[in-house]
Amino acid sequence: MTFTPTGYDAYDFANRRHIGPSPQEMEEMLATIGVNSLDELIDRTVPRAIRQAEPLDFGAPLSESELLSHMREVAGRNTVLTSLIGQGYHNTITPPAIKRNIFENPAWYTAYTPYQPEISQGRLEALLNYQTMVCDLTGLDIANASLLDESTAAAEAMTMAQRASKSKSMKFFVDEACHPQNIDVIRTRAEPLGIEVVLGRPSDLVADEVFGAIFQYPGTNGVLRDFTPQMEALHAAKAIGIVIADPMALCLLKEPGAMGADIAVGSTQRFGVPLGYGGPHAAYMACKDALKRSMPGRIVGVSIDARGNRAYRLSLQTREQHIRREKATSNVCTAQALLAVMASMYAVFHGPSGLKAIAQGIHARTVTMARGLRDAGFDVFPKKVFDTVTVEVGPFQGAILKSAVEEGLNLRRVGTTRIGITLDEVTTPDTIAAVWRAFGITGPVPESTTYDLPEKLVRETPYLTHEIFHMNRAETEMMRYMRRLADRDLALDRAMIPLGSCTMKLNAAAEMIPVSWDEISSLHPFVPADQAEGYTHLIADLSAKLCAITGYNAFSMQPNSGAQGEYAGLLTIRNFHIANGEGDRDVCLIPMSAHGTNPASAQMVGWKVVPIKSAANGDIDLQDFEAKAQEHAGRLAAAMITYPSTHGVFEETVTEVCKIVHQHGGQVYIDGANLNAMVGLSRPGDLGGDVSHLNLHKTFCIPHGGGGPGMGPIGVKAHLIPHLPGHTAQGGTGAVSAAPFGSPSILPISWAYCLMMGGEGLTQATRVAILNANYIAARLREAYPILYKGPLGHVAHECILDTRPFAEVGVTVDDIAKRLMDCGFHAPTMSWPISGTLMVEPTESETKAELDRFCDAMLAIREEIMDIESGRHDHAASPLAHAPHTVEDLVGDWDRAYSREQGCFPPGAFRVDKYWPPVNRVDNVWGDRNLTCTCPPMSDYAVAAE
Amino acid sequence: MTFTPTGYDAYDFANRRHIGPSPQEMEEMLATIGVNSLDELIDRTVPRAIRQAEPLDFGAPLSESELLSHMREVAGRNTVLTSLIGQGYHNTITPPAIKRNIFENPAWYTAYTPYQPEISQGRLEALLNYQTMVCDLTGLDIANASLLDESTAAAEAMTMAQRASKSKSMKFFVDEACHPQNIDVIRTRAEPLGIEVVLGRPSDLVADEVFGAIFQYPGTNGVLRDFTPQMEALHAAKAIGIVIADPMALCLLKEPGAMGADIAVGSTQRFGVPLGYGGPHAAYMACKDALKRSMPGRIVGVSIDARGNRAYRLSLQTREQHIRREKATSNVCTAQALLAVMASMYAVFHGPSGLKAIAQGIHARTVTMARGLRDAGFDVFPKKVFDTVTVEVGPFQGAILKSAVEEGLNLRRVGTTRIGITLDEVTTPDTIAAVWRAFGITGPVPESTTYDLPEKLVRETPYLTHEIFHMNRAETEMMRYMRRLADRDLALDRAMIPLGSCTMKLNAAAEMIPVSWDEISSLHPFVPADQAEGYTHLIADLSAKLCAITGYNAFSMQPNSGAQGEYAGLLTIRNFHIANGEGDRDVCLIPMSAHGTNPASAQMVGWKVVPIKSAANGDIDLQDFEAKAQEHAGRLAAAMITYPSTHGVFEETVTEVCKIVHQHGGQVYIDGANLNAMVGLSRPGDLGGDVSHLNLHKTFCIPHGGGGPGMGPIGVKAHLIPHLPGHTAQGGTGAVSAAPFGSPSILPISWAYCLMMGGEGLTQATRVAILNANYIAARLREAYPILYKGPLGHVAHECILDTRPFAEVGVTVDDIAKRLMDCGFHAPTMSWPISGTLMVEPTESETKAELDRFCDAMLAIREEIMDIESGRHDHAASPLAHAPHTVEDLVGDWDRAYSREQGCFPPGAFRVDKYWPPVNRVDNVWGDRNLTCTCPPMSDYAVAAE
Repeated sequence: MTFTPTGYDAYDFANRRHIGPSPQEMEEMLATIGVNSLDELIDRTVPRAIRQAEPLDFGAPLSESELLSHMREVAGRNTVLTSLIGQGYHNTITPPAIKRNIFENPAWYTAYTPYQPEISQGRLEALLNYQTMVCDLTGLDIANASLLDESTAAAEAMTMAQRASKSKSMKFFVDEACHPQNIDVIRTRAEPLGIEVVLGRPSDLVADEVFGAIFQYPGTNGVLRDFTPQMEALHAAKAIGIVIADPMALCLLKEPGAMGADIAVGSTQRFGVPLGYGGPHAAYMACKDALKRSMPGRIVGVSIDARGNRAYRLSLQTREQHIRREKATSNVCTAQALLAVMASMYAVFHGPSGLKAIAQGIHARTVTMARGLRDAGFDVFPKKVFDTVTVEVGPFQGAILKSAVEEGLNLRRVGTTRIGITLDEVTTPDTIAAVWRAFGITGPVPESTTYDLPEKLVRETPYLTHEIFHMNRAETEMMRYMRRLADRDLALDRAMIPLGSCTMKLNAAAEMIPVSWDEISSLHPFVPADQAEGYTHLIADLSAKLCAITGYNAFSMQPNSGAQGEYAGLLTIRNFHIANGEGDRDVCLIPMSAHGTNPASAQMVGWKVVPIKSAANGDIDLQDFEAKAQEHAGRLAAAMITYPSTHGVFEETVTEVCKIVHQHGGQVYIDGANLNAMVGLSRPGDLGGDVSHLNLHKTFCIPHGGGGPGMGPIGVKAHLIPHLPGHTAQGGTGAVSAAPFGSPSILPISWAYCLMMGGEGLTQATRVAILNANYIAARLREAYPILYKGPLGHVAHECILDTRPFAEVGVTVDDIAKRLMDCGFHAPTMSWPISGTLMVEPTESETKAELDRFCDAMLAIREEIMDIESGRHDHAASPLAHAPHTVEDLVGDWDRAYSREQGCFPPGAFRVDKYWPPVNRVDNVWGDRNLTCTCPPMSDYAVAAE
Repeated sequence: MTFTPTGYDAYDFANRRHIGPSPQEMEEMLATIGVNSLDELIDRTVPRAIRQAEPLDFGAPLSESELLSHMREVAGRNTVLTSLIGQGYHNTITPPAIKRNIFENPAWYTAYTPYQPEISQGRLEALLNYQTMVCDLTGLDIANASLLDESTAAAEAMTMAQRASKSKSMKFFVDEACHPQNIDVIRTRAEPLGIEVVLGRPSDLVADEVFGAIFQYPGTNGVLRDFTPQMEALHAAKAIGIVIADPMALCLLKEPGAMGADIAVGSTQRFGVPLGYGGPHAAYMACKDALKRSMPGRIVGVSIDARGNRAYRLSLQTREQHIRREKATSNVCTAQALLAVMASMYAVFHGPSGLKAIAQGIHARTVTMARGLRDAGFDVFPKKVFDTVTVEVGPFQGAILKSAVEEGLNLRRVGTTRIGITLDEVTTPDTIAAVWRAFGITGPVPESTTYDLPEKLVRETPYLTHEIFHMNRAETEMMRYMRRLADRDLALDRAMIPLGSCTMKLNAAAEMIPVSWDEISSLHPFVPADQAEGYTHLIADLSAKLCAITGYNAFSMQPNSGAQGEYAGLLTIRNFHIANGEGDRDVCLIPMSAHGTNPASAQMVGWKVVPIKSAANGDIDLQDFEAKAQEHAGRLAAAMITYPSTHGVFEETVTEVCKIVHQHGGQVYIDGANLNAMVGLSRPGDLGGDVSHLNLHKTFCIPHGGGGPGMGPIGVKAHLIPHLPGHTAQGGTGAVSAAPFGSPSILPISWAYCLMMGGEGLTQATRVAILNANYIAARLREAYPILYKGPLGHVAHECILDTRPFAEVGVTVDDIAKRLMDCGFHAPTMSWPISGTLMVEPTESETKAELDRFCDAMLAIREEIMDIESGRHDHAASPLAHAPHTVEDLVGDWDRAYSREQGCFPPGAFRVDKYWPPVNRVDNVWGDRNLTCTCPPMSDYAVAAE
């Protein structure tokens, strides 16, 4: 008997993993929307004119087990040697408890950025620990919650110095002992802003000719200098002094604050974050208190909640690009939250004595290693170092590097006659013996107990004095601390996070697993190419797939956030114009509805932003657009548009808009933030786009990590390929990131997603994302006006709910957001792109049951609003005003106008599995007025008895 | 400048991981106890006479990263081929979401057995799903929550049949088509009980000569038979019919229930549980309703809580060995909870249509593969199979097996002229092509869509009809379901579980990580030895270390639970006596305070249990002991003692006791349950023990998994080595487990623990375990009488709190246990070894802060009891009587004699991080009276709105 297979593929994309609604649920949802089929819905939503000609085809999708075995094979093409290359990247030991309980735990990695503080107290505490650690180690007053990498942090510090300095100079001094990638990224950043980079030795500094100066500590070849004289000179000239400092070195060495530095930046990678062939890891930035309002990035601060209890939140948000828009001089948006959390936990695990011992061990082994080389007659310098030495080897460079590889070691090629060696936490006597053998030296390795630091640079101040760094460090206690923090937060592993424009979709386990593998996580970014063949294949194949998806001709993986992708894309356009002799093109058209990063990015490449009006229906006002394009025709550099628009609509006019730009000599930047509504249906490259960035952490399943990492590679048309960012490690210039491929260790996630979905699966995901959004719109349209629909009444992959009518009775969008917490939901995007609205993006991952739970909650909230409108409740006495409700409300006296039951268990809330926000509504004003951005004493969160 | 290292080793055992209290905390604790040093405490606690002569020395302990790299190297000595050996073990795909969210999640793996149902609702639900799945697939009425492996389940079924049958026969029929290891384990079990095993073909069965019969389905070589005629004949003879059935085959084939079987057993390994070189995985057992009270193992049932809401619990506990003791005929104690949860989640993930499709795929590929062999002229039988065929190859067996290995395949050697091939979920067309090549066949592999099952055996009934198996199977939904269940339970990752005699210590992340590695998890138990060299080394080295720790001469890793270790140890003694011509020695002396498994195990080897009294101080009554030994001198087989005693005291008389036993011709079994109080200080082998089992899941860090897995290897003196269990796979007999090394894939955990602690670290763990117990005793001694101390007033590693005095005012030990839940604790061991007491074992992993939190809770509870004693509160109105308190209490009306605050936040409870039991106190009587052991409709746990 033959049989027809039942049509169930155990890992069928339509049944499992990424597609939330079951086929039967889809039928019900289509009926609610009022269309007959998913095809019909898509036809009515996505204009024919913009649809792509051919379906996506990547061959048969892989099952999860096929994917994992293929990934094993590809990862196996990477060769993991012991890299002693240094240059800002170090081997480190991730404590297994951190690896298992944070790095591999969906409660941490699926969380969103902590903009809703009441449901983010766990990671806010971890990030506050991070800031405290950074302030302590650097000796500065205030730190942010991380930046992308050391090089971009250095570039941010430069522009921050320019903002903060009272000097009118446009010159910026850069220590020639900075890591090459730092110098390169600073240069890339400086040039469009008209900043002149002056490279030299610290002793060359002429302080009153610059607005700031930056120094590397230790220097790239190991040198240790005290920058106190430079700082004094700079301050006398009203200029700003910056130190790029290795936090491990700061455990033994005089801190930048003690030298008088205004700003310190650096990488915390070696605090337990795997190398990952370059990323992701968390850079830090700290500064003096006086500069805090100029500091880019997110800052966690301490405030109080409605009961006066301590609560954490993001502080000083008015500095950020989504508020400042055209005035912003940084577009920093993504942090590296997950990695900053890991680095802070590393510090909590080890405490100050542990960190000091680790640093001592590194240093002492370096002294031993260097002595062996010197004793054998090698010319080793500098004389006194922390962890890095340089050896002059003349013509033997090649031979020794080769010999080192045979010993399983990568050393650093410095110039043509030198070799750099940097030791780390993982170095053992065997490693030293192997180094020596590479240099032809044999002999036993003595115990490393010799300390040889410059006496004047020995650190004299304590650090990590807060009690959190002195807690009992038994693994049992640590594990429970991480669990407690995780439990305070509401992440995707418990509920839908329907954040418009953020595409909070499933991060499937099969996609996440390879990230932990040694062959993926343990490669230094500057290893020889033949040791990274697996990565090379993965990156090439992922690029090819992204080209097929977008209609572009090439991708650069270098930008490691969406905003950085924008910046890199605009730089590419700028390079193109310059190469064509049209370097004076500097006007960028940007619709007013654009994400705040768009104008900020344009500013960063030195362009003038010309805003374009919206038509009444939310579309780009084509007349205004054409008029502005004409007006600036001679200087038109580019237009930045988002597709589908930030209003969640597929504008029919998009090809027309692109045509206008091209007619006037400009290039079209299509923001890829909403690509999840296009994959398989429409290609930005076909619409007329010249360049786009893709948020791999949105559309392509890289988790948000509680506020980073991200990846924002850019795709370009063929004519722009020569103008993409290069990287010193590949012999190029114009880098925008510290590492050539940004944060490559998370690329396997996106690649796995493409391989397991196949072209058909990716397209189905897009279609279902549109279905889910339209289902929510259909269920809520009677209760909330839906702003901005397409001509046939449908939205794209998100929908905007208008809550402005409720302002009359005092109900704010905030009230609704907080009330949703009572229902067990993270709020949709608030007040963006239109103030007083909620933008809901469910993604394809959510099931009908979860969508219904959300709609039930929203409808119940609407009824609570009607109670106020009808006069039955006063706003101030309503559950909306008191939201979110906590156990503290429940346990105390209850004199509310509504019942405990109504307050705490509104529709949508789980009963047994109720999520309880750990704090009541957080007071934002209080927090900014009483700014504290390091750990306060730990009297909260203690045992109730105390 | 040279420096003295600061004495901080980043992974120093004393600072980190396993040792809870910091050095400073230890000082404070010693002061509370009233001794000057840890040495002094140990000297006062552990008698000089029993101390071991030499300190443990395993060389320098490894750091975590050294351990992981060493483990990588050793694991790399295993070779992972594709095993098509079958014989009860199959390749399977663990859905990555299950791997990440259950197998690698401390919330699941650190949980204890769900004896306290209010804080175990999550895994109770998962286990109820498991039981429902088993009942559905087998077509029987009731199932237990898993047994150790298929072979022991088959042996349990045999003894259960004997209990349940009305036949007086002592013969048991065994189908010769059973897997060899099943036949072997059944024989081992039968012989001491006087059961005669009759091996034959089903057609040979003479039903009225046996009390029961067991059949394998499919047979070991692939044969499919309908056992309906045998079942009818057995029932006519009042005998019991048992089928060992592959649950995957049951997705397509007529179920045992439909054949009339009374009992079905089998392995659920192929439902997503990795092979692990033999284990752990969950066996199942199901039976007709009428037999339920004879069924061994744990059974989850449905009951109600104090509010009448649904709640799960363990049912029919009065069947179990800790209640029945001498009357028990099974000593089953450990289940395989973690693995049963995984298998049940596999079924939830796939649902019935998915399971059916997987089974169809396996079958169709088998048909294709077999056809290719037949077409090439090979003699392939049976004609109709599910997944297994046997090929007659005459003298070419060796050549083809070798050729298969070269193709990356292990096939099964059957007899001397045959080869067995079993396909599975992982089989691809490439696998089939490789099989064919091994047989010299080339050619394309066609699509597998042919179905060829015996028509009369095609399954006609539905299965997995409950809605839980029809939930939306998007990964997002599954991930959240697993998270919700995990959050309902209180495991070691949130709080101390101070269970006396259960040693709930840290399961360190570094120890757990290798268990997930392919080289550990993907080996079939019967691969050629040269493919398992890593395992061989690991097992040999772990055995050597355990010998050094215990003073024995050899270890057998075969028993995969503590109770099974007891049984195997007693069998070894029995074998020894028989070999010495003293087979009539059949009396076993067991103190009355022994764990219930001791007498049950003695029963299982056919011995008579002679109980020994306790002296007033809890020690063994030496006079009674000597008298009983003399009385039974001629027939004395063994004495079973526990050391330190189950009263938590190091009895000085232990060597005397051993001497008495030996003088009278017996052997000494020392129960290793309390070994955590001895490692490095005293060795059972030195005290006079001849054999001991060790609970690796207690002392050696294997997690309890929410009620299994376990490992109970036995150590023996040299004279017993020849009498240890053998295994057919190694050419031996007398097996007690299905696999030669029990559950070897979890042995890396114990090995890693030993390697990272070193001898000194292990000894320090013991000392601190004793410190922690004495600290609790010191803090609580004023409030609760401490029963059974040593002569100088100290306890060993646990202490017994007497709560019997409170019975006068109605306060039960249960009240205290439930009230501890309000404080965020799992209760200590209740009413064992003495009714009305609590036995507290903190282990070395707990910090002083956690011990204090527990003591604060216990002292506050004592005050609540005093409120009742003083008449201030009525017992019925007290927080004790209403404990545990839930959110339901808080949200509803409150008419209690105490405040919400007092009810829900007693001392010890976390405030922000409060753990809320999901149900109020569970009604045990109701549950047994209204027995339901499969999933009821899911109306609870829904969204509050509905």
